[in-house]
Amino acid sequence: MKIAMLGLGKMGGNMAARLIRNGHEVVGYDTSQEVIAKLEKTEKLIPSISVKEAISKLEGQKIVWMMLPAGEITKKQIADLIPLLNKDDIIVDGGNSNFKQSVKMGSMLEEYDIGFMDCGTSGGVWGLDNGYCLMVGASLEVAKAVEPILRALAPTPQTGWLHVGPIGSGHFTKMIHNGIEYGMMESFAEGLELLKGREEYGINIADVTELWRHGSVVRSWLLDLTAEALKGDQDLEKIEPFVADSGEGRWTAVEAIEQGIPAPVLTQALQVRFRSQEKSKGYGYKILSIMRNAFGGHVMKKKG
Amino acid sequence: MKIAMLGLGKMGGNMAARLIRNGHEVVGYDTSQEVIAKLEKTEKLIPSISVKEAISKLEGQKIVWMMLPAGEITKKQIADLIPLLNKDDIIVDGGNSNFKQSVKMGSMLEEYDIGFMDCGTSGGVWGLDNGYCLMVGASLEVAKAVEPILRALAPTPQTGWLHVGPIGSGHFTKMIHNGIEYGMMESFAEGLELLKGREEYGINIADVTELWRHGSVVRSWLLDLTAEALKGDQDLEKIEPFVADSGEGRWTAVEAIEQGIPAPVLTQALQVRFRSQEKSKGYGYKILSIMRNAFGGHVMKKKG
Repeated sequence: MKIAMLGLGKMGGNMAARLIRNGHEVVGYDTSQEVIAKLEKTEKLIPSISVKEAISKLEGQKIVWMMLPAGEITKKQIADLIPLLNKDDIIVDGGNSNFKQSVKMGSMLEEYDIGFMDCGTSGGVWGLDNGYCLMVGASLEVAKAVEPILRALAPTPQTGWLHVGPIGSGHFTKMIHNGIEYGMMESFAEGLELLKGREEYGINIADVTELWRHGSVVRSWLLDLTAEALKGDQDLEKIEPFVADSGEGRWTAVEAIEQGIPAPVLTQALQVRFRSQEKSKGYGYKILSIMRNAFGGHVMKKKG
Repeated sequence: MKIAMLGLGKMGGNMAARLIRNGHEVVGYDTSQEVIAKLEKTEKLIPSISVKEAISKLEGQKIVWMMLPAGEITKKQIADLIPLLNKDDIIVDGGNSNFKQSVKMGSMLEEYDIGFMDCGTSGGVWGLDNGYCLMVGASLEVAKAVEPILRALAPTPQTGWLHVGPIGSGHFTKMIHNGIEYGMMESFAEGLELLKGREEYGINIADVTELWRHGSVVRSWLLDLTAEALKGDQDLEKIEPFVADSGEGRWTAVEAIEQGIPAPVLTQALQVRFRSQEKSKGYGYKILSIMRNAFGGHVMKKKG
């Protein structure tokens, strides 16, 4: 098949490469012509100087796969695509969009008889070699049309891609996947911090994470990556203890509230990241400190 | 080598079998003669009718591996072994003992010049085929003496066993391992509950867990087991929503308090299990209910 890939960053670029290596043709567009030129050279990507040109290089039922930052950029790109596409053409949003936005996009595109697929995509920078895990929300017809592409992106044609349900369900499933990821990551983070904290044992954290990869209950891909990353340096003195968060962790916590179903661990894993970011400069700690001073005369630690 | 294995339950029985299959001789004892007879028949376990007899069947530097319930039973067994052993013999506690108890046991046995190893053992019922992950606390001499056994129990002679540090560090590392396990399990539990909760998507939870096994960031052995278990029945209507907890989850939460290091996710994963057990019959909920009624006149849901 021949499709267009819009956005050739860490995810989109590797996905285009994987598709080409699996025998598909990919017309690529990115705001950076440098990125396009590189993929043209290394992977035989078909280059384009604009979205319009990229689309014009497709034939028949056009499939446009977007790997763009979630939110306004994705939304605007979809609107811009409408005049360039015909009835039964398909837009795939493979980014990390909020599933509610994807439902809206799907309804809007339906007005123009343009098909839509929300495809939650997991696998990170390793996807090029290992394949991606694809969570698909779409109508049966749209899923069927895109299937050859899904089979090429997944680890194997049979595994790692699933038509989960209607539009929205792909990004919803990816959102929950990332929520779980937050909880798993924080579990390892807390455990390894406690392991390091018992100084009398002088435990080699790199050795233990490597050990656990073999036969333990916590063995996992996240542990594989962690063990590998700790091999060179386990003290991490040059790393700031600051953890960013992106949309899905927050949306998962909101989802729990909307459903009225408790998800304390997923929520807490997110809150821990907020705390590391310290946007509030620890104002809450200061309040606690003045309260302890007020009722108990406890000494407040002062700056400087 | 020839060792004694005390306790031939789910863990000890399979470990004895794995050792025998790897060319070692194992004298087995269990309170159930039936269990011993079975392993004698299927695995050529050397049977014994008492701990004393089991020990008497060993020669030279005796190694006694215990796979017993943690706490008083393990403690008593160690005391009972002292008069049966000689200088430089070795007791291995492969159970889930508290690391602080193991430190005490090690010190006590040192008085009698008996070696001690605390060996945290992970792998569950799958260890027989896959091998066990072994976290070893011991002196260098003791670790060296037991090494051939560790190499046979581990997934491969080179991987899955580690001399972590001094006595206590093996069970300490296993405790943290299990703490992490609680957090990972609860992460999946919460995520899958939210996935099921969005009824409009009718998501097939069995399909999604199977999907995530391929190329996703959350792929892990726990996910493998979960996907497999959900294949037959994903509604789980016959399963009580009750989750037991054993020592390590609690000890990990206490460890965080003792170190003064926050571990909110590991702690919360434990608290969730307490809530599922409902020993308090929801007394806290009732208090909240009467408070809401008291200040806001909100209707209390009454029984019957």
